[in-house]
Amino acid sequence: MAHAAADAAGAVIRPLFRSALLVEAKGDASPVTEADRAAERAIRALLAEHLPRHGVIGEEYGSEREDAEWVWVLDPIDGTRAFVTGRPLFGTLVGLLHRGRPVLGLIDQPATGERWLGVAGQPTSFTAPFGGTAGCRPCARLADAELSCTAPDMFAPGRQAKFEQVRAAARRTTWGGDCYAYGLVALGLIDVVIEDTLKPWDWAALVPVIEGAGGRVTDWAGRDLVLGSAQGDVVALGDPALLPEVLALLA
Amino acid sequence: MAHAAADAAGAVIRPLFRSALLVEAKGDASPVTEADRAAERAIRALLAEHLPRHGVIGEEYGSEREDAEWVWVLDPIDGTRAFVTGRPLFGTLVGLLHRGRPVLGLIDQPATGERWLGVAGQPTSFTAPFGGTAGCRPCARLADAELSCTAPDMFAPGRQAKFEQVRAAARRTTWGGDCYAYGLVALGLIDVVIEDTLKPWDWAALVPVIEGAGGRVTDWAGRDLVLGSAQGDVVALGDPALLPEVLALLA
Repeated sequence: MAHAAADAAGAVIRPLFRSALLVEAKGDASPVTEADRAAERAIRALLAEHLPRHGVIGEEYGSEREDAEWVWVLDPIDGTRAFVTGRPLFGTLVGLLHRGRPVLGLIDQPATGERWLGVAGQPTSFTAPFGGTAGCRPCARLADAELSCTAPDMFAPGRQAKFEQVRAAARRTTWGGDCYAYGLVALGLIDVVIEDTLKPWDWAALVPVIEGAGGRVTDWAGRDLVLGSAQGDVVALGDPALLPEVLALLA
Repeated sequence: MAHAAADAAGAVIRPLFRSALLVEAKGDASPVTEADRAAERAIRALLAEHLPRHGVIGEEYGSEREDAEWVWVLDPIDGTRAFVTGRPLFGTLVGLLHRGRPVLGLIDQPATGERWLGVAGQPTSFTAPFGGTAGCRPCARLADAELSCTAPDMFAPGRQAKFEQVRAAARRTTWGGDCYAYGLVALGLIDVVIEDTLKPWDWAALVPVIEGAGGRVTDWAGRDLVLGSAQGDVVALGDPALLPEVLALLA
């Protein structure tokens, strides 16, 4: 179902990427919003047909049966800014929660054809027309770590300074990336992603992808991300051994 | 020859992208330096065989016959940081100068298969397995412009503040990208790139690509980029009408 959902979204999104419509819109998000909505409708139609008792939470159309045992969490275009500027680093995110906990996650890059699939208790898979193998790398010291974050201005008040402490201690920082950066953690190319103000549709799909590749995803206090209690602060690590050092700086 | 040069470089670079070697190196640049050198040697061997009187300037092996009428300017891996973190936004740059002025430029993305070719006096061509069409878009006011720059810390002392004036006046800024951002200007998806401390191998290939797509590339004083006089400060515009407004802020 996750593959079918991503396929349906990709069919809607792909023709718009770098299209004349986006060129003419000069970076205006409204054509993207239209594509985002159409893709979410396509996924919701699939779910309604095949899994009518499951709940759905999506960025564009809100929640249905959020208290169901199984809830799908959707973001057809994560990384709007990458999308409108033509960078193939946005992604379609399809997550599945069981009693509020992420148990399946899919990240799809519709332009390049890269796709990550994580399922709780199984090794993450990755397919791409070019290189990359699923599996986080060891990195036990923050001083050796490649850090990534989408934007320096994404933090809630008071949290920017904590992030800066981690940044100062990390080896190097790269910006941008949205969900794609988490995918690169699962390929062993980035060691740490620290972000804030994420919504459930931003994080639900990422947890099984990274944890199935040997990494760890928590909030800034080291707790599992669970629907209802998660506040949007996220730490993703390729090597779980990094957790105490990172959490101490974010405390 | 430019196509053959990029093909030769890509054959060296592609197997290393996201390879186990890079994962193990944890972002260390040295395996990239090795690939960069091997790719530059491959291009230099082609040039020596077919165009022995032409000059060559490359990032890794310096200059040969820099005062020749025709001089090739090479950067096999522009965007090292994107390369080591697995983002397919680095590029192979092949430029050709005639009496110091760029007359041909090629940008190749070896992982995705995107390739831009610009030749003085001809329309720029772009090929990709996914979307995008060569051609800059109109954008006559900086307030409507999508601005891009590789990193906020790339400016020479005293120039950061000038860049910030442009940034404050632009509609939006995206970071990262190296040569890829200039390619997106030539696709009408970004309107302005402003950078500093660039070397000839960073800018030589970009000028014909953007100008053949209808844009304009100058230094911060509005002068053509010419080998010997260019100082590394670069403005690339999709719409040449933006030049006076941008130059006034950089003055």
